[in-house]
Amino acid sequence: MLKKEKIPKVTIQRMAVYLQMLEELEEEGEEVVSSTRLAELCGVNSSQIRKDLAYFGEFGVRGVGYYVRDLIASIKHFLGIQKVWNCAIVGIGNLGRAILRYKDLSKKGYKIVGAFDCDPFKIGERVGDLEIICTRRLKEKAKDLNIKIGIITTPPNRAQRAANHIVEAGIKAIVNFAPTRIQVPDDVIVDYVDFSTHLIYLSFSLSNLGK
Amino acid sequence: MLKKEKIPKVTIQRMAVYLQMLEELEEEGEEVVSSTRLAELCGVNSSQIRKDLAYFGEFGVRGVGYYVRDLIASIKHFLGIQKVWNCAIVGIGNLGRAILRYKDLSKKGYKIVGAFDCDPFKIGERVGDLEIICTRRLKEKAKDLNIKIGIITTPPNRAQRAANHIVEAGIKAIVNFAPTRIQVPDDVIVDYVDFSTHLIYLSFSLSNLGK
Repeated sequence: MLKKEKIPKVTIQRMAVYLQMLEELEEEGEEVVSSTRLAELCGVNSSQIRKDLAYFGEFGVRGVGYYVRDLIASIKHFLGIQKVWNCAIVGIGNLGRAILRYKDLSKKGYKIVGAFDCDPFKIGERVGDLEIICTRRLKEKAKDLNIKIGIITTPPNRAQRAANHIVEAGIKAIVNFAPTRIQVPDDVIVDYVDFSTHLIYLSFSLSNLGK
Repeated sequence: MLKKEKIPKVTIQRMAVYLQMLEELEEEGEEVVSSTRLAELCGVNSSQIRKDLAYFGEFGVRGVGYYVRDLIASIKHFLGIQKVWNCAIVGIGNLGRAILRYKDLSKKGYKIVGAFDCDPFKIGERVGDLEIICTRRLKEKAKDLNIKIGIITTPPNRAQRAANHIVEAGIKAIVNFAPTRIQVPDDVIVDYVDFSTHLIYLSFSLSNLGK
């Protein structure tokens, strides 16, 4: 995992949430938003928002709040997502297809440029704008396509093999959706999206609140 | 969100990770595991594991480590997942189908007992063991099926409507996969699974590590 970070991961995650909410406000034509309102929309308290935004010196305007468009630009700059990040998906089942069809992703600066699967019956099939390519060709394609992030959406028993292909291709960041841990070299960052973790959190909360 | 919690959310999430790894070890026939080994597999440090497990007084056996089966039972007891939690999915697109076919979910104590969608062309279609039901019937079905958790996998512009149906059905916990915030009463817990947040975290890390 990330060792040299100074800004906590949870802060980055909250920033991503603020950004999403601000973009929704912008679409609705809102020009300004108070920290109280933004906090309410994001489900955090307003002192948290002010603290987080202070990381990049964004303090808002007294009596007005934040200018939506400016704040979006500041957060994007802070998060390094003015540029486009090319991503590859490995494992084109239902989940892989769901992500391929997730339209807002490119708006957020992430472009899926490669769809890989090792199933010979899937290779060559078109999904949206992409043609499914054999996973063995990931290494060859990664440079051409300038892939920076690998997304694993295989079944759990194939996740490590997918990770190996991604690592061999020189890709340094992985989002793993398969419900299993993967082993990668120290210089590769892995983030896990584990659906059952969220369910466990909810059921724990329900149990302990006596609902 | 959850206000009365004493145990941090991140601890619960790590517990879920330990549980998953321990279950994999058990499947591989391992009977004991050291905290160092478990830490390595889970991508945390071993003092963190010992600290987390101390929440329920599980300290392991000196010179041996943890008995895998016993530790699984303790964590499950702690997390309140010896029982089965019935869930409903609202929105049967690719993502909904991926979750419906996620086989390990019932092993973990979560059973999807209802699949809902408002698309008349989908209503009545069978997905696995379930028949897709009109979302308007969620309220009527929730009691019969004893649904405790609602999972939203609709497009973003339909997420609030899905949430309203879930809330009206008296369900107090929601996992929202739609990339948008939803508004619910204070007594309903919402957890967000936002895919783009994970990408943002990774690209931020890549930018800042100069990779």
